[in-house]
Amino acid sequence: MINTYVVRRVIAAVGATQKASYAQEFFKAVTAVNKGRGEKKSVAPRFTKKSHAKLSEYLRNMATPEIEAQLAPLRTAVKEYGDLVRALKASFFLFIIANFLFLREVSLAPKEASFDRLKLEDLLKRRFFYDQSFSIYGGVTGLYDFGPMGCALKANMIHEWRKHFVLEEGMLEVDCTSLTPEPVLRASGHVDRFADWMVKDIKTGECFRADHLIKNAAEKVISDKKADETMKTELRDVLARLEGFDDKDMLEVITKYNFKSPNTGNDLTPPIAFNLMFPSQIGPTGDFKAFLRPETAQGIFVNFKRLLEFNQGRLPFAAAQIGLGFRNEISPRQGLIRVREFTMCEIEHFVDPNNKSHPKFKKVSSYAMMLLSACNQMDGQSAQSISVGEAVEKGIVANETLGYYMARTHMYLVKVGVDPRRLRFRQHLNNEMAHYAQDCWDAEILTSYGWIECVGNADRSCYDLKQHSRATNTKLVAEKKLSEPRTVDIVEALANMTILGKEFKKDAKKVNFLRTLLKTVKYQENISELFKVHVEEITPSVIEPSFGIGRVMYAILEHSFRQREGDEQRTFLALRPLVAPIKCSVLPISANERLNPIIEAVREELSKHDLSYRVDDSAGSIGRRYARTDEIGIPFGVTVDFESEKQPFGSPSECIFQLTEVGGVVSALVNERMDWTMAQQKYPKFEAKSD
Amino acid sequence: MINTYVVRRVIAAVGATQKASYAQEFFKAVTAVNKGRGEKKSVAPRFTKKSHAKLSEYLRNMATPEIEAQLAPLRTAVKEYGDLVRALKASFFLFIIANFLFLREVSLAPKEASFDRLKLEDLLKRRFFYDQSFSIYGGVTGLYDFGPMGCALKANMIHEWRKHFVLEEGMLEVDCTSLTPEPVLRASGHVDRFADWMVKDIKTGECFRADHLIKNAAEKVISDKKADETMKTELRDVLARLEGFDDKDMLEVITKYNFKSPNTGNDLTPPIAFNLMFPSQIGPTGDFKAFLRPETAQGIFVNFKRLLEFNQGRLPFAAAQIGLGFRNEISPRQGLIRVREFTMCEIEHFVDPNNKSHPKFKKVSSYAMMLLSACNQMDGQSAQSISVGEAVEKGIVANETLGYYMARTHMYLVKVGVDPRRLRFRQHLNNEMAHYAQDCWDAEILTSYGWIECVGNADRSCYDLKQHSRATNTKLVAEKKLSEPRTVDIVEALANMTILGKEFKKDAKKVNFLRTLLKTVKYQENISELFKVHVEEITPSVIEPSFGIGRVMYAILEHSFRQREGDEQRTFLALRPLVAPIKCSVLPISANERLNPIIEAVREELSKHDLSYRVDDSAGSIGRRYARTDEIGIPFGVTVDFESEKQPFGSPSECIFQLTEVGGVVSALVNERMDWTMAQQKYPKFEAKSD
Repeated sequence: MINTYVVRRVIAAVGATQKASYAQEFFKAVTAVNKGRGEKKSVAPRFTKKSHAKLSEYLRNMATPEIEAQLAPLRTAVKEYGDLVRALKASFFLFIIANFLFLREVSLAPKEASFDRLKLEDLLKRRFFYDQSFSIYGGVTGLYDFGPMGCALKANMIHEWRKHFVLEEGMLEVDCTSLTPEPVLRASGHVDRFADWMVKDIKTGECFRADHLIKNAAEKVISDKKADETMKTELRDVLARLEGFDDKDMLEVITKYNFKSPNTGNDLTPPIAFNLMFPSQIGPTGDFKAFLRPETAQGIFVNFKRLLEFNQGRLPFAAAQIGLGFRNEISPRQGLIRVREFTMCEIEHFVDPNNKSHPKFKKVSSYAMMLLSACNQMDGQSAQSISVGEAVEKGIVANETLGYYMARTHMYLVKVGVDPRRLRFRQHLNNEMAHYAQDCWDAEILTSYGWIECVGNADRSCYDLKQHSRATNTKLVAEKKLSEPRTVDIVEALANMTILGKEFKKDAKKVNFLRTLLKTVKYQENISELFKVHVEEITPSVIEPSFGIGRVMYAILEHSFRQREGDEQRTFLALRPLVAPIKCSVLPISANERLNPIIEAVREELSKHDLSYRVDDSAGSIGRRYARTDEIGIPFGVTVDFESEKQPFGSPSECIFQLTEVGGVVSALVNERMDWTMAQQKYPKFEAKSD
Repeated sequence: MINTYVVRRVIAAVGATQKASYAQEFFKAVTAVNKGRGEKKSVAPRFTKKSHAKLSEYLRNMATPEIEAQLAPLRTAVKEYGDLVRALKASFFLFIIANFLFLREVSLAPKEASFDRLKLEDLLKRRFFYDQSFSIYGGVTGLYDFGPMGCALKANMIHEWRKHFVLEEGMLEVDCTSLTPEPVLRASGHVDRFADWMVKDIKTGECFRADHLIKNAAEKVISDKKADETMKTELRDVLARLEGFDDKDMLEVITKYNFKSPNTGNDLTPPIAFNLMFPSQIGPTGDFKAFLRPETAQGIFVNFKRLLEFNQGRLPFAAAQIGLGFRNEISPRQGLIRVREFTMCEIEHFVDPNNKSHPKFKKVSSYAMMLLSACNQMDGQSAQSISVGEAVEKGIVANETLGYYMARTHMYLVKVGVDPRRLRFRQHLNNEMAHYAQDCWDAEILTSYGWIECVGNADRSCYDLKQHSRATNTKLVAEKKLSEPRTVDIVEALANMTILGKEFKKDAKKVNFLRTLLKTVKYQENISELFKVHVEEITPSVIEPSFGIGRVMYAILEHSFRQREGDEQRTFLALRPLVAPIKCSVLPISANERLNPIIEAVREELSKHDLSYRVDDSAGSIGRRYARTDEIGIPFGVTVDFESEKQPFGSPSECIFQLTEVGGVVSALVNERMDWTMAQQKYPKFEAKSD
């Protein structure tokens, strides 16, 4: 904690000439920061060392070039004086300048940088958004149950997804089974390759994901002041390359740095591949092996023929699926970010591999997004804002269809409540791509866990269709009409009757026999002939946007979490009305029975418009009851008072409505056909009357 | 096939006096039937023997007392003349009278009795409502994928369910995991008791569900003309009691009647219990056993404490869950009726076991339903129409809450398209009740597979909460406020210091030691004291309506399936607009490009109101294109013609709308805020103009 008192004491110890200039500037900075945070002047910003570290980390992630320009000289000065300190032991200079940097950071950092995850988690648990599954049985890591609030939020997000993608883009939605026979997932490559490297404590058998173990152990060394600097540098390099490591690389690291089992200090086994699919079997015999699907995509691929037919044989078309995915994570942490059972929304857009243009691309081409390309990552540069049109033109994003879906994904995420400043697309590096992907851009959202992949946008090329086609000996192709008939040279094998006649005499004329013979080249006579063809068969490429709904939901909850200014214990969720679990609260001003018929009428009005509501007729003050509704993100409230008996009908700080208007107005506000400013212009403002 | 030619020939062989009267009446009957079926007069009704049998069967199930009264004398006559035939070989009398009965049946049977399942299945497959999963891999029995039409139908049914139950009744919806640890399902009784009896072919190992095998084998014997009549009678009795059979009963039947493996004729093993849950394991060690949940209910029970708290500790309240259930059926048949992975919608209504009244019961008490009580079944009576109020009053339905949910279930089913004439509630007999149920009424829907259980309405009493409470040593109770404080006699155990002092002297004063000692009765001195208590702890009873969405969907599809009069090859679905997968077709009258901007404007109008639509600009005639939209149950169509260019905008047989009205009107029609009669009164009728 840094306060003015400490600073004063330090400055008192500094030589007189420096004092004047530093002290003045420093106090100015303190005052400016405090003012920005709406606090009383006399109290300096209260930050623990940990929360300061978090804030710095946040700015390293998120700073705009302008912010960075302001911080850079201070950072340099801190480094310089740091060296000086070590040389001259002149610690007060370092202290003061480090504090300048800190204060500048606080004044430049947005509110969310001081986000308090524990407070959010407390709210989510207390108001039952979600919580660990089976906790009365001790709980299961990586499994979560959604309570009424989380369930409604999720349902609303999915409803919006269906509107935004399936309805607006005319997609073919399917609903396939989670149980998937083994041969299907063998063809898709999941049986052989959908695995994580795992190490075990050789004594207790406890299992760890090898890359997570290395990451944690390396970070521990790096943050250890006493550790060797050369080793730290090496381990920093390990962390940067970790995503691309195979088992041998990891074993080398574990052996070289002597990493141990974190809880016991025991030795570890070499990394072994652990398949992440949950196994089961279908039917009573026990010999029909199956898995729970790790993604919904395969259900779409195995239905490709039916879907193409449904679309009357035409390309391109998109199929979509909303459903469960299952991944048997080795040791899941991080709440909703890494779970074993989750809802996915996936789109498979089938397109001509030689023409990945998109008919609606023009509609989004000027839409700007933050992109972090593979090149930028290799060069150590940060994400840049660029229009999707320009990104495709410059070849940063490979094609229009991929770019179109990135833009539409971005729009959806912002619509349901992701903060666009904390949203970027990061291109996969070659060594981190899934086995089926040709190119991939992840929509990453910045949360307190760092940048989290929430939507993958992959070009799976024709990998899956070809694999299933091979495994089942089924044609999975579309017919493409050629712009003009193409003349092809078809070589047909005909019987060389001269040779045949010689060798087989009379028998040679029997057709069936001939057919067999013709398989032998010896009896063939190749005749080349020219044909005109109007169509060609192609295996479509697939562009796949794949949404992890739980992750997006968690990001929304973090981004909409607020603490009341001046009363930081009072927390609330500023959810977008579109996704808010409950749209409207109904708060009678008193428990007087005279209000009951009006409350009943309001309920009916809201139900008629399919609006979820919550009547809070408990004893608390209106203010306290509003706070309770804020906590679960209810965006609108209707107050019923005694004025309401005489028809018009108001909410305390805001507007007055006729009873019969309430449902329509709230519905229009929720569905964004009207905003609050419009409502205020249209309806009279409520003013408390003194009777 | 019976046609007038055959009848003429038979009558020609009959004596002259009988000829006149029979012939006249018979031809009258033929003509009447044909007229009713809209066929040309000269052709007699075409029915195969099989479809006639089906029709008779249907009437036996469904006939009203009035219909039955008309058929009874003919049935008696057929029986009488049957006996006569056997006695006198006077086959022509029997033939003619049997034909009278048949014709009367045809004229009295509703259209659905001649339902053709193959035709429906063809439509559902062709237009991809649903189809077998993984069929390019050979398919898996009991697993189905929903295509775009089935998926949208299902989504609409669920959306309506959520409105009808969760929203209107203010239920707490949750969303729990499918993966369920073994101890949870052991406590619920599923590990030990959720099993079917299975027999195996001793040579091939092929597995059969024992009751299904007995049923099929018995039915085969019964329909075998040569089989022994005593045996038939015995087997009819077996069929009637089969639901309550255990393994010994079944072994006895299999042995006694020498039933064999149906495909090979090999011997069968004795029945063994096969647990219907899909096993898996969680995490990498392999020792955390889990199952896929067989019902969503358990997720609600293990969250009871959180839900009660969410409801501020108050009873009654209802929780709901929409999600997957999994049952590893031994050998599933019957399409969507018996599947291994399915969507359930379940409600658990927690209520005071001593007061199962429902606050909204009055709203439904006059609602009438067909009830088939356990008593009625024992007495061989059929279902009777009765108001739910009367049913509860007479004790036929045990309590108001159960009755309320039966009525609300009935309303939902009718709303989404179940034919109310083919819907009844059947009470479970004691021996068929699930292990957790105290009373159960199944909503059964009549389909071509017979009466199918689609919704179970069970009173699970406090079974599940008590089981989980015991297994976890957790209190799963609610506090009930007593109407007036109750005085209870609380016996408190205090140390009898005299005895203690004597035996332990100085040590007796050490408090911790005393606590241990007090567990021994010998050292206790019981002091009875009177306390006033204001609350008591109760374990709530649970009323559970549980919907199998796939079964309801199949019933809806059967009930809405139609064949065009006079063109029986032209089939279509008369789905309720509320659940129809696509709400509106857009049919341009020609491919002329001038119509494109209008089509685009219509699309936007429909999208704005979240209405799914399908533009069919293919080459076919308007009539043919309408037929195509009928087939997938699109309830409304908008025709775009050249008149539309001049603003008003029409559909050929019907009304004219302004372009800007289209979305609003279709939306009002779909959501039943307006019906077609109202629309016709409000908007001018379209009349084709001759230019």
